Amino acid sequence: MKFELVAGQAVLERTPSTLRALLAGLAPAWSLATEGDGTWSAYDVVGHLIHGERTDWIPRAEIILAQAGERRFTPFDREAQFRESAGRSLDELLDQFATLRAANLDTLAGWRLTDEQLALTGVHPVFGEVTLGQLLATWVAHDLGHVAQVARVMARQYRDAVGPWRAYLPILGAD
Amino acid sequence: MKFELVAGQAVLERTPSTLRALLAGLAPAWSLATEGDGTWSAYDVVGHLIHGERTDWIPRAEIILAQAGERRFTPFDREAQFRESAGRSLDELLDQFATLRAANLDTLAGWRLTDEQLALTGVHPVFGEVTLGQLLATWVAHDLGHVAQVARVMARQYRDAVGPWRAYLPILGAD
Repeated sequence: MKFELVAGQAVLERTPSTLRALLAGLAPAWSLATEGDGTWSAYDVVGHLIHGERTDWIPRAEIILAQAGERRFTPFDREAQFRESAGRSLDELLDQFATLRAANLDTLAGWRLTDEQLALTGVHPVFGEVTLGQLLATWVAHDLGHVAQVARVMARQYRDAVGPWRAYLPILGAD
Repeated sequence: MKFELVAGQAVLERTPSTLRALLAGLAPAWSLATEGDGTWSAYDVVGHLIHGERTDWIPRAEIILAQAGERRFTPFDREAQFRESAGRSLDELLDQFATLRAANLDTLAGWRLTDEQLALTGVHPVFGEVTLGQLLATWVAHDLGHVAQVARVMARQYRDAVGPWRAYLPILGAD
C-alpha cells in the first residue's frame, strides 16, 4: 500500500484509544509483565510512544520541511521511558499519550502536505536520505508494531496456563 | 502466570472495545487487507471471534461443567466466518462481537467457578484431556493473539512505504 495521508492519519488517531481500551485500569500483573530480562512491558511501550511524540515524528518532519540548515535527525533515545515514566501510573501515561498525539495530528493536518512535500528528504543517522512520506508511514507501522507487541507480551503470560493449546497459538512463541 | 478468573475476565472484557477502537470506521483498504493468499484480514478475524463466542468457549466450558455424557468437544470450524460474515459490514460485526462477548462474560461470572471446577476436564478432539482452566486461559491468549494479528496485518501494508526503516520494524517481517 502506498502511503497516503488520510489513511495514515486514520490509524494514528486510533492508537491512543486502542491502547486505552486494552490497558486502562488493568492490574499491574498484566501491564508490568514482560517477555523476560531486557524486554518491555505494556507500561514501557506507552512511555516509549510518549517519547516518540515529543522527540521523533513531528520534530523530524519539521527538519525535513524546513529544507534548510541541518537536515540530519537527532538520534532517538529508545530507553528514555525508563527515566521519564518513573513514578507515573499507566493511566496517566495513556492520557498523556492521547494528548500529545492529538496535538501532533493537529500539527500534521495543519501542514496540508502535498505529494511534493512528502517526497522531500532528511538525513537519518543510520540510513541516510529518507523521505517525509517514509517517515510518516513509519510512524503508522511503528504504532501498529507496538500494539501487536503489547498484545503478544500479555498473551505470553499464559504460555503455560493454556496447556496443550500452546501448539495452536503461534503468538505464544516456540519453546 | 497462573490462570485466575478475575485477571482473565479483565482481558476478555477489553477485547471488543480494543478492536472497535482500532477498526471501527476504518476504510476497507485497511480492514480488508491481508498478508497474502490464504491469510486473514481484520474483517475475517472479527468474524472468526464471533464464531468462537457462539460455538467454542462457553459451549466447551458447559460440556466440561456438565461432567456427564459426551465430554468430547465438537471440532471448531476455523473457516466459518467466510460463510457467516458474508454481506455484513465490519461495524456490524464489531457490534455483534461485543454483544455476544458481554453475554458470555455474564454466563461465566454467573457460574462463580471454584478452583475445583477449573480443574475439571473435557476431551479435546486432538489434545485429549484438557482442564476448564486451560480452556479459559486459551480464550484469553486467543483474543490477544488475534489483536496482535490484526495490528500486524495492517502494519505490513506499509512494508514498502517505510523505505529503509523496515530494518527497524520486526513487525514487517523478513524478506
